[in-house]
Order: sequence, then structure tokens, then C-alpha cells
Amino acid sequence: VSGEYDLHYWPTIQGRGEFVRLVLEEAGATYRDVGRLPRSRGGGVEKIVALMEGEREGALPFAPPILVHGEMVLAQTALICAYLGERHGLAPAGHDGHFTALQHMLTIADIVAEVHETHHPISASLYYEDQLEEARRAAELFRSERLPRFLEYFEGVLSRSGGKWMMGEALTYVDLAIFQLLEGLAYAFPRSTRRLSAETPRLRSVRQRVRRRPRVAAYLRSKRRIPFNEEGIFRRYAELDPAR
Amino acid sequence: VSGEYDLHYWPTIQGRGEFVRLVLEEAGATYRDVGRLPRSRGGGVEKIVALMEGEREGALPFAPPILVHGEMVLAQTALICAYLGERHGLAPAGHDGHFTALQHMLTIADIVAEVHETHHPISASLYYEDQLEEARRAAELFRSERLPRFLEYFEGVLSRSGGKWMMGEALTYVDLAIFQLLEGLAYAFPRSTRRLSAETPRLRSVRQRVRRRPRVAAYLRSKRRIPFNEEGIFRRYAELDPAR
Repeated sequence: VSGEYDLHYWPTIQGRGEFVRLVLEEAGATYRDVGRLPRSRGGGVEKIVALMEGEREGALPFAPPILVHGEMVLAQTALICAYLGERHGLAPAGHDGHFTALQHMLTIADIVAEVHETHHPISASLYYEDQLEEARRAAELFRSERLPRFLEYFEGVLSRSGGKWMMGEALTYVDLAIFQLLEGLAYAFPRSTRRLSAETPRLRSVRQRVRRRPRVAAYLRSKRRIPFNEEGIFRRYAELDPAR
Repeated sequence: VSGEYDLHYWPTIQGRGEFVRLVLEEAGATYRDVGRLPRSRGGGVEKIVALMEGEREGALPFAPPILVHGEMVLAQTALICAYLGERHGLAPAGHDGHFTALQHMLTIADIVAEVHETHHPISASLYYEDQLEEARRAAELFRSERLPRFLEYFEGVLSRSGGKWMMGEALTYVDLAIFQLLEGLAYAFPRSTRRLSAETPRLRSVRQRVRRRPRVAAYLRSKRRIPFNEEGIFRRYAELDPAR
């Protein structure tokens, strides 16, 4: 399948690329997931590395996900989602809406980064096993302080939005990201997430409604959806979400 | 001084708010640094907290810095800088330029977050002294791997920009952020930064040229510029940048 967009992301994980994939899928856009294509079809990890090494004109990307769309080379997950959302009717119209939606998206990116730090508190360069004790301490504070604070905050955004979605009456890329965040949290911290879910009914409702969108539902059933695993951002390590 | 903008940020540190202050100062904008004003003039930390608790209509902010401009309530450092830069001729014109400049700004925000993690690897909720050994390990990997990678990357962006600034021939908010990043790194990691500075002449030049801009220079001499200290993001702890 060729397509309008080339997404460059690591081929074996959902990771940050999954936020982009969900926007592309809900939009019904045609795209190539370059990292997952075989070399014979111009894909593979080499293509991602070449892009980071400056193979193409345009802005140099620091890290995947990277979207290539015509002359545009764009990195940074939140920005790619905004860029696509605005092209496909999945973003609020206008200047102020652009900034407000991106604000929420970047706050989602912040908690995603904190999730990553629960299993890699010392450095992304070390194995999990080499920072396991530190991960236990980090995850405990994440579960008890940061996770409730973020989820209550997003629930508060929904209660003020003037509709059932994060930006009001219409679904946007921000809701797709909330869905992915909640799916990931439920995978990585099943016990803690279940407890908090009871206190955040609006978030629970967004998660259910996104999951049932026909294109999202079809995507989740397809092989294009990589299962969660312990190489991505959301990892299920029992010791990081123990029974109380 | 009243003003067009109300910046809400913690009153005793540069922190992430400093990236916003530099755009406001270079723009010659009139603004109130609300957290630093006395209560009698409508300022103080209480005002920041009230905003986070939803005192005003509009998008709920998660954390400072928060800009209030008319009806707009905007959080997320990178976005505030873009918003102001675009209003004051400190950003590229046009849709693609908006996205590319924000991409670079968000990558700067990423390294700033990693700097914070060098002294708070386990959690921002704990004191530095309670995660000192972990901080030593985290800082060593930051200095040896992440810091050179980021600086070489930004040097690469400059070498391809088509001008002496990050976005080409004109100064933008991205250059002001590069300046603040390099100032902060030189404060927090003086030894490591000095070594890397020799290998990144374009970055060194941006830092010098921004510092000499008349409005920036006047700001840096003023009392509005809070000195670096060990409560902010960039902290000088000798044990985190030891002699080799």
C-alpha cells in the first residue's frame, strides 16, 4: 500500500508512534508504516535511521515518530497528531483551538514521559533490570501521586469542555490520545488504573466511545495494531503495580 | 506596570518560565510577572494556584508557566513561546514554519526535562538528598550520552538552517530557547559544557549573539532576571559534574 503519508517509527512497539497511528486510522488516511515494511519495499529500521541522519531536506528530526508528507518532515508526537488532525477534521478550527488542543496533547505527552520514567528512572540507556530497585520507588510515587493528579486533571478538563469530548462537542486527536493513554495505563498499572477509573467517569466514557468508533475498532482488531509488550512505553511489570 | 500579558510562574526560580520571559523581553512586550507581584497588587503564588484550580474560564492549565492574554489561558512552555513569538515577529511565517519551529522547541523542552531528571531521577516529589546516589548515576549517563547527542543534533540543525539562526536568517523564539538552554547547561554542568562547546561553534555563536541583543542584555542586567539557583531546573551540584 502506498499512501499520502510515510510514518517512521520502530516496528515492534506501539510506543509514541501509536498516538500517530490512531489519528491516521480514525482519519481513514492512506499511509505507509515504513519501519514495518520489508527492505524490498523501501522499509525497515534503516530508513528511520537515514532520516535521522539527515537523508532528506527539511527540518532534521531528533527521534521517531517522524512523519513525511510531501516536503514536510515532522517529528514530535504531539505536533504530528495536531498536523494530521487539522488536515482530517480531527482538530478544532481556528487559532485558539489549535493552541488549546495542543496544550492538552502536550500534557498527555508529559504523563506518557513519566510512565516511561517509572521503568527507566536512571536512564533509557540502561536495562530495566539494572535499575529495578529505583523503578520500584519511582513507580510507587507515580501511582500514589502523579497518576491520580493527572487523571483528575483530565477529568476536570472534560467536565468544563462543554461537550463529551476533550475539546467540546467534537472528537479530536486529543481524545484519541486520551484513549491510548488509558489503554496503556490499564495495561501497565491494572490495579491502580481500575481504582482510579471509578473516580473518573468522563474519562472512562471517552475511552469506551473511542474504542467503538468503527475505524478504531477495525484497527484494534487488525494486525496493524501491535500488542502492548515490555519493549514499549507501557510495560506490565507486576512489581511496579503490586497488590496493596 | 500593567501590561498586555499576565505570566504566571513560580516567583523564585528561572525554571521553565524563563523561556517565556525571554520571548516577552526580546519582544519588548509589556507584561506582569504575576507570581512576583505583591498580593496588594494582585500577585503572589495564590494567583497561580487559583488559575490551576480553574478560577478562570477557558482551558484548564495543568502546571505553570501559564500565560493569560485576554480570553486565552495557555499552558505548556513551548506553546506559550510559539504563541508569543508569532504575535511579535519572533517566529517564522506560515503553516509549515509554525510546525517546524515548534518541533525544535519541543526537542529543547525534551532535553530540559532530562536535565531535571538528573537531579530528580526517582521523583520530583522527593528531595534531592533522598535520591542523591541515583542522581549521580543518572547525571553520569546524561553527561556522557544524552548531552553530546542533543548538542550535536542542535548543531546539525544550525548547519542546515540556511542562516545563522535555528530557523534560518531570522532570529526566532527557538534561538532564545537555545540561549537559555546553553546558559543553564553552563551553570549546571560547567565542565562538560565547556568541553562540548569547542565542538559546537554554531551553538556557541547563537548563545553569544542572543546575549548581546540590546533588550536581552538589558534584561540580563536587570532585577527581573532571577539568578540561577538550586531550586530551579538547572542546578549546580559539584557531584553531578565532577572533574574527570
